[in-house]
Amino acid sequence: MPSTRSGPLTGEESSALVLFSGGQDSTTCLAWALSRYQRVETIGFDYGQRHAVEMEVREPVRQRIAGLSAEWSRKLGPDRVVSLDALGQVSISALTADLPMEKRPDGLPSTFVPGRNLVFLTFAAITAYQRGLKYVVAGVCETDFSGYPDCRDDTVKALQVAINLGMESRLVLETPLMWIDKADTWRLAERLGGQGLVDLIVEETHTCYLGDREHRHAWGVGCGTCDACRLRAGGWSRFRG
Amino acid sequence: MPSTRSGPLTGEESSALVLFSGGQDSTTCLAWALSRYQRVETIGFDYGQRHAVEMEVREPVRQRIAGLSAEWSRKLGPDRVVSLDALGQVSISALTADLPMEKRPDGLPSTFVPGRNLVFLTFAAITAYQRGLKYVVAGVCETDFSGYPDCRDDTVKALQVAINLGMESRLVLETPLMWIDKADTWRLAERLGGQGLVDLIVEETHTCYLGDREHRHAWGVGCGTCDACRLRAGGWSRFRG
Repeated sequence: MPSTRSGPLTGEESSALVLFSGGQDSTTCLAWALSRYQRVETIGFDYGQRHAVEMEVREPVRQRIAGLSAEWSRKLGPDRVVSLDALGQVSISALTADLPMEKRPDGLPSTFVPGRNLVFLTFAAITAYQRGLKYVVAGVCETDFSGYPDCRDDTVKALQVAINLGMESRLVLETPLMWIDKADTWRLAERLGGQGLVDLIVEETHTCYLGDREHRHAWGVGCGTCDACRLRAGGWSRFRG
Repeated sequence: MPSTRSGPLTGEESSALVLFSGGQDSTTCLAWALSRYQRVETIGFDYGQRHAVEMEVREPVRQRIAGLSAEWSRKLGPDRVVSLDALGQVSISALTADLPMEKRPDGLPSTFVPGRNLVFLTFAAITAYQRGLKYVVAGVCETDFSGYPDCRDDTVKALQVAINLGMESRLVLETPLMWIDKADTWRLAERLGGQGLVDLIVEETHTCYLGDREHRHAWGVGCGTCDACRLRAGGWSRFRG
């Protein structure tokens, strides 16, 4: 199935599965996919405490993004959530049983697992393969988070090769945010969905590590002090500044 | 940490995690690892019906293999089982909800998932990384099972690169059975652990797709007619013939 990126994609070629967490980045990726492919489905992973809030905002975000345009509404297909308790089982805390199940100083849960995105991308690829979706879209990014080696471009490209060898597939892992910063992510959202999408991201999506849904700011809802909130707020300042 | 394969491995370099299912292949791999490394742990994955029997034989096999030599007993570390219900969630049957949860004609459960070994190897690698184990040993093999592309050498080698990029690690995925057939797997077991290991594999390990633990044969326990039993019996004939 040859395809060039210069012409429009059609049929099976024009379908995508978006790794959708309910945060700013993956919501922007969902809009990116809806503006580009004919059929778009979403997948999320449930594996720990912090993500409970993200899980709750998923459906409101999906409904509101579909409400932004009749075309997007027509393209948006089903969502699925995969429970990955196994990530907790292989986490440092579960293995050594001597770490408390609380937040680490960096705001991540102590169940954080190196290589977690390898698992997410692999499960998403298996799902995409079985659903007949060609593109797997993930909001991973090198620019702001240099600390996570499984978010890097080299990792994603090597993993695409391993996945396609392992399933005899021709999936494509797309990472539209890989080389842009948080200000450009806001700009991308505005270009894709205008003020309506920017408002949606501000009001509905969740980024805060502490799960704060009480404090409202120009750039969104959150504690305003954790690393994730500061990154989002900083990007907003450069976007609107 | 430079190491050459010609000299003996020591310390952190000489440690392995074996993907251990309780079958002939992974038991042979466990013996291979015990004969080669100073510290050896095991990991298994629980995700479906067929594997219930395999799960039951794991501990007896581990205990008996440790009983074959004081050195192996000293080297053998803890076992862990990871529950991968998520594989059922992304299986064809779970996604389409119109396939019965029964055996397919090839003897595999209908929850069989393409790319399953990508998931197993990735979880094993994450665990090995966190446990400080350098080698990940898997009994995957191209020779007898050409049908599973995620058992192929190309897949495993590409995945090693993706995993090491994704965790900034230097793990090695070892597949000692990749290029040998079932007769040579029996020969390898005999060379590693003598008649004691051969007897152990015949009497304790489980291979049969149908979960049969009633019918005893010279080559092991099983229905004797499913693909897995016939492959094992055929290898035995060429080994003893």
